[in-house]
Amino acid sequence: MARRLKHWGWGYEDEQPSHDEVRAAAAYIAPQVGFGAAEPERPVPLSELSLPAPRLTPPASLAGICSTETYDRALHSYGRSYRDVVRAFRGQFDHPPDVVAHPHDEAEVAAVLEWASDSGAAAIPFGGGTSVVGGVEPRVGDGYEGVVTIDLKRLDRVLEVDEVSLAARIQAGATGPGLEQQLAEHGLTLRHFPQSFEFSTLGGWIATRAGGHFATLYTHIDDLVESVRALTPLGVWQSRRLPGSGAGVSPDRMLIGSEGTLGVITEAWMRVRRKPVHRASAGVRFATFAAGAEAVRALSQSGLYPTNCRLIDPAEAKLTGAGDGTHALLVLGFESADHDVQPWMSLALGCCVGFGGSWERRGEEGAASADSVGSWRQAFLRAPYLRDTFVAMGVLSETFETAVTWDRFPGFHAAVSERVQAAVTAVCGSGAVSCRFTHVYPDGPAPYFTILAPARRGDELEQWAQIKAYASEAVLEHGGTITHHHAVGRDHRPWYDRQRPALFADALAAAKAAVDPRGALNPGVLIDPE
Amino acid sequence: MARRLKHWGWGYEDEQPSHDEVRAAAAYIAPQVGFGAAEPERPVPLSELSLPAPRLTPPASLAGICSTETYDRALHSYGRSYRDVVRAFRGQFDHPPDVVAHPHDEAEVAAVLEWASDSGAAAIPFGGGTSVVGGVEPRVGDGYEGVVTIDLKRLDRVLEVDEVSLAARIQAGATGPGLEQQLAEHGLTLRHFPQSFEFSTLGGWIATRAGGHFATLYTHIDDLVESVRALTPLGVWQSRRLPGSGAGVSPDRMLIGSEGTLGVITEAWMRVRRKPVHRASAGVRFATFAAGAEAVRALSQSGLYPTNCRLIDPAEAKLTGAGDGTHALLVLGFESADHDVQPWMSLALGCCVGFGGSWERRGEEGAASADSVGSWRQAFLRAPYLRDTFVAMGVLSETFETAVTWDRFPGFHAAVSERVQAAVTAVCGSGAVSCRFTHVYPDGPAPYFTILAPARRGDELEQWAQIKAYASEAVLEHGGTITHHHAVGRDHRPWYDRQRPALFADALAAAKAAVDPRGALNPGVLIDPE
Repeated sequence: MARRLKHWGWGYEDEQPSHDEVRAAAAYIAPQVGFGAAEPERPVPLSELSLPAPRLTPPASLAGICSTETYDRALHSYGRSYRDVVRAFRGQFDHPPDVVAHPHDEAEVAAVLEWASDSGAAAIPFGGGTSVVGGVEPRVGDGYEGVVTIDLKRLDRVLEVDEVSLAARIQAGATGPGLEQQLAEHGLTLRHFPQSFEFSTLGGWIATRAGGHFATLYTHIDDLVESVRALTPLGVWQSRRLPGSGAGVSPDRMLIGSEGTLGVITEAWMRVRRKPVHRASAGVRFATFAAGAEAVRALSQSGLYPTNCRLIDPAEAKLTGAGDGTHALLVLGFESADHDVQPWMSLALGCCVGFGGSWERRGEEGAASADSVGSWRQAFLRAPYLRDTFVAMGVLSETFETAVTWDRFPGFHAAVSERVQAAVTAVCGSGAVSCRFTHVYPDGPAPYFTILAPARRGDELEQWAQIKAYASEAVLEHGGTITHHHAVGRDHRPWYDRQRPALFADALAAAKAAVDPRGALNPGVLIDPE
Repeated sequence: MARRLKHWGWGYEDEQPSHDEVRAAAAYIAPQVGFGAAEPERPVPLSELSLPAPRLTPPASLAGICSTETYDRALHSYGRSYRDVVRAFRGQFDHPPDVVAHPHDEAEVAAVLEWASDSGAAAIPFGGGTSVVGGVEPRVGDGYEGVVTIDLKRLDRVLEVDEVSLAARIQAGATGPGLEQQLAEHGLTLRHFPQSFEFSTLGGWIATRAGGHFATLYTHIDDLVESVRALTPLGVWQSRRLPGSGAGVSPDRMLIGSEGTLGVITEAWMRVRRKPVHRASAGVRFATFAAGAEAVRALSQSGLYPTNCRLIDPAEAKLTGAGDGTHALLVLGFESADHDVQPWMSLALGCCVGFGGSWERRGEEGAASADSVGSWRQAFLRAPYLRDTFVAMGVLSETFETAVTWDRFPGFHAAVSERVQAAVTAVCGSGAVSCRFTHVYPDGPAPYFTILAPARRGDELEQWAQIKAYASEAVLEHGGTITHHHAVGRDHRPWYDRQRPALFADALAAAKAAVDPRGALNPGVLIDPE
């Protein structure tokens, strides 16, 4: 093994700054955000962890790909939400998987799944482990003999490329950079860039309906899926490669978003594209977030379909170095492998003028790194790393995201911001709530809220839970979805259960029972164990 | 009741040409297609029908909205495939519904559904009755005490319009013209124009994943659905209005394409748009269908997203008066409510040049009616009416449609055309097979085949069945879907069952059983009765 991931936070072990570096970072950050201790804590090292003994012993035939080592079990105990990082940082591992399997191919996945199911164990498919909703956490209840986490990352190949149809057959464990590198050999790209891109996997994206690069049209991975192959405890579920179909209920749409409850996704044919060579981007300023939102509504209904259309409120623009807090910023971009996109950009900017938008320059994306758009991009990529430092320095950092129709948006934004701000103040004493749009639709935006607040050390989990509940209640009450692209997992269940149609829940549970009769697959996610 | 639909064919009774007019039409058509009798048959009149006695008697509370009249039962016995029209024309009504209900509102739909389910009867939701796949035909097997067809057409209102989000809440029984007229009062339009537009309904479109106006991006009704409300035998299944969501498996995507097996769709929030005011259209000629297909592939992968992009082969262009048989025709169009689309058209035409495309004129859509594009449009709209005359004059007329990836398309087109042509010749002695694209995707086209052949009077159903089986086998074997937008119904079941993942079929059957435990809803469609 070359590089190992940190067992408690974001990124590789060899990327973790030294304690002195963390201290320096904390000293720099604290005055900017207005809170956080100058003296950061240190994470509990791996050597000091004491995990409960594994309850399962893999059969000899699987021993070579199964691990019960503390590092493996710790790494696969959590996703990477704030709550996860706090617990892992503090060495709190109450529900580690008993065994972590690292299959090399689909046959080995099938063998592990069969063993788990036959043993009365739960089986949790695991890609990059970047879930922020408890999607891979082995909290499965009492009805299981143990938990086997199936890490798919050795299934990391682009198996076939169809350059005529622009599609590629890709294994589920391929990470963002891994699959992009292989596609680049053919001049192709998937261009699905969630914030977790560096570590998350294709299978995880499909299982959780991940949101990616494109702000319009292809917002979720869903629309890039041509066909999916999954292993259920009863065998293979594979759809036909088709550009489109109307043959009854879509089999793919039942697997997409199933979050590991129906099967282990092992590969998919994905729609890819040629690398864009024409680009235009601009940072458009608006006096207020509301004015920017009106411009984005007009853009979303214009049929121009910008690739990037991310509206950032004044507070978040300031926080990310993309503004001074006096204006909202719209990060606007078009790209194409086929044609010059300046005419599109001109129309889009023309639209912004009508809402008081102004901009200083327009140019190629490559040249924009020094400006506000570039600042924001850098902050976006750095955020998951920064969270580890926040935990160390006692800053509570949480995000929640949703989508809501335009008619409700102004009231939604006011009410949710106000209620969550009040909750943050009540729970933490102070703190800030900011908002941006990650994706936009003709009928509404996908707002994404960021919370930064002073944490009381040792009370972070309780503080997080209180704020999460306030935020989720506010989102649901004012017409949003409990998640636009972070998935449901275990953390969103109370609100997801109220949001979804009850009869759909019954139908989904019955569908699961038909392909996973022992309820082995990721119990507690989406559906309760029987 | 003002106008009545013909009980045996397309359109209203008052539109049916006189026998002399049919004879004149037959005399005109026969030399053009090369076969068909100069002396057409006459349909069996309603007064001569003798239907089996109804097996069900509605309770007094529902008597006012239920009918057992011969006209109602005959009208609801079939969809409008060639096979359906032949049977209805000949007065062959072996499986009429026992009762036809005409509820005025959702409460009445619920009452009818409850009565049907409690009576051990099957319940078939019925919109426009334009199915061409046996989707509304009461062939439900022996396990039922009778069949109640629930005609939704009295639920025909646009209930709410959200002009901010561009969405409208529309009842399922609204027909294309009915809902467009109501939306037009707000300057809005759904712009979903299947060939059946005049009679088919929103609920039918959603239940069958209908294909519409847009050749790219919004090809199926699926993507225009914001939320759906349906009645199952156990109660209401309604999703939240959301512009996008990633909260688990999509509840809407389970109802969309369920073809009346999971619930009776009663209304939906639909994404609408402002009426387009900018248009550009062109008819581009290519030397061959293959050259045109390569151009369409390039267009589909360009990111230009033409509204219309229908490639018609030389034979079909000639048949529809849109060509002389020496070239393929691409009907290309862009439209927008927001901006001039000539720049898009210029790029698209530039793309066509690279594949030998040529065109005579470009202009506004309104001015195009006299040219080849207009000829094709008129033929498209006339086709369902023409089929009635074909039946009368002994011309077998059948269509089948699919989608396939671009890498397979050349081989697919050659093999399917050849095999179906051979089957048509073997079964009918002569006849022609032509092809067009109805929709296109970056990864493949949706080819639509039309068959015209001399029918042997009295043997049409057997001839149809043989040709249908050959065509379906060829489509499946060469990588297509059994249907891109005509749905599965009962006619496509043998091939659909082989196409879909077997475990998905089990999951879907279990989902149905969870919401329709007596299996009352449209038995035999998608899923066999228990």
